[in-house]
Amino acid sequence: MLTVFGTVALDTTRTPFRTETRILGGAATFASLSASMFSSTSIVAVIGSDMPAAHIGLIRSRGIDTKGIVTVQGGKTFHYDSSFDYDLSNRTTNKTELGVVAGFDPVIPGEYAKSDFVYLANNDPKQNIKILEYFDSPKLIVCDTIEFWIHGSRDDVVKMIGRTHGLVINDNEARLLCKEANLSKCAKKIISWGSRFVIIKKGEHGAILFTSEGLVFPAAAFFLDEIVDPTGAGDSFAGGLLGHIARRNSLDFSTMKEAVIYGNVMGSFAVEDFGVHRLLAIQKDDVEARYLKYRNLVQF
Amino acid sequence: MLTVFGTVALDTTRTPFRTETRILGGAATFASLSASMFSSTSIVAVIGSDMPAAHIGLIRSRGIDTKGIVTVQGGKTFHYDSSFDYDLSNRTTNKTELGVVAGFDPVIPGEYAKSDFVYLANNDPKQNIKILEYFDSPKLIVCDTIEFWIHGSRDDVVKMIGRTHGLVINDNEARLLCKEANLSKCAKKIISWGSRFVIIKKGEHGAILFTSEGLVFPAAAFFLDEIVDPTGAGDSFAGGLLGHIARRNSLDFSTMKEAVIYGNVMGSFAVEDFGVHRLLAIQKDDVEARYLKYRNLVQF
Repeated sequence: MLTVFGTVALDTTRTPFRTETRILGGAATFASLSASMFSSTSIVAVIGSDMPAAHIGLIRSRGIDTKGIVTVQGGKTFHYDSSFDYDLSNRTTNKTELGVVAGFDPVIPGEYAKSDFVYLANNDPKQNIKILEYFDSPKLIVCDTIEFWIHGSRDDVVKMIGRTHGLVINDNEARLLCKEANLSKCAKKIISWGSRFVIIKKGEHGAILFTSEGLVFPAAAFFLDEIVDPTGAGDSFAGGLLGHIARRNSLDFSTMKEAVIYGNVMGSFAVEDFGVHRLLAIQKDDVEARYLKYRNLVQF
Repeated sequence: MLTVFGTVALDTTRTPFRTETRILGGAATFASLSASMFSSTSIVAVIGSDMPAAHIGLIRSRGIDTKGIVTVQGGKTFHYDSSFDYDLSNRTTNKTELGVVAGFDPVIPGEYAKSDFVYLANNDPKQNIKILEYFDSPKLIVCDTIEFWIHGSRDDVVKMIGRTHGLVINDNEARLLCKEANLSKCAKKIISWGSRFVIIKKGEHGAILFTSEGLVFPAAAFFLDEIVDPTGAGDSFAGGLLGHIARRNSLDFSTMKEAVIYGNVMGSFAVEDFGVHRLLAIQKDDVEARYLKYRNLVQF
């Protein structure tokens, strides 16, 4: 089983073409919806009583175990309000309302403790470290982080990396975290903190996997003509990555490389519609078809 | 035969680690040295009498036909002085001395007229259009351009694109030329001006080939741990691209895709040492070995 810990949120997303208010979002939502295409997935998160039951119903509709979602009565769900510019590549944060996420003391349902695979989505690194106590002995723990935590809690981010096996991170955040421009040097530094591998996501430019054995795998992004909403691409990438690894139950380099491609594939679906719409519309066959299409696209 | 038209220059290149003064450079130099690994190559350029004969000897040492290099007695060779920042990704132009390149009226040795393949390296688009009159009926004409000409002579750049078959261009220059952020839309616009294909180079992120039939090929860059001098990467890319197409004498999509990878390979060699040093040090076997290494690197 794969357990995902992170935010289940309400997003207000504004593009020059359309605005959607308080739709279902959050790192754990995207990651678990994506992972559920590959393996049995459960989710740990905290929400307020303002979260519509129908939203959680959408997550459950994909077979995801939502027993780990804690509702704080009278509390406010994490709300993220952001705007994209005309070419949908730069996002501006308008408002981040942590709500019940602030100071959440994570617990997990007992049966999650046996999870072999754990994904710590972008979240307070202290909470991410804390929740690890509840798991018996996962084969693979992967984490993510963002600028907000790197600025505010860099020491905890580094500590979290040392307690996990792999890091998935954006290029600019890797540079910020490592205080180093060259991505290869960033990867080496992160690995020196105790990680077995790092995947640096480069948005429309794809991703690069670096391992502690010195192996490297650069992958071009799946090519899309039109992007509707980039929200959740990175989390969907991580969900596809972890989901495929869990499905294969293997950590060898060839599985890891496939997992990076499945990550690209899931990220490419996520951005084709607003919020989680596209992830909820696709079936397993669509994922495999796009994987083959990608393979064909990059083959020479 | 492949004929390359462009600058044979003196470069002063400053990195935070080393400065080299008035070394052999220029778009046509890099492109022809790169292409010479694949096919018989000739070069058309203008230089001043300040160009050391030994520099031209280096070009000739790779079997390149230099009869098309015109020397203007008493004239000054094109000199480009630039500095790279600490991570070698941003270049600042310190000085551009056009010298004998300004107002050059290009001519070609008669035997070049039968060239099947022509590469118009970054150069005044008016000169690029003019020189085409001298060729009988090339199977493939590819051009490049840079910010300088897009700012100063955009109409001529668009006209040049309409007179040639393919364009090789940097991502930021494509955006500037097309007044459009999305690279796919840039490619469509360039193709609407009469090009059969566009290759958008994205530096460390690789390149994307777009064809007028709507085919797309994204390729990750060859992964390098260390870059010494990025000068000439794009021109070496174009040389490898054209060289492989000339060697195969084919324009089908599978040859084009291979050519993009050979372009990446040649660009990756160019940046491993200052100026043209690395291109002069490698042999054909090194090129094929790196092509296979690349194939192995990106395979999954």
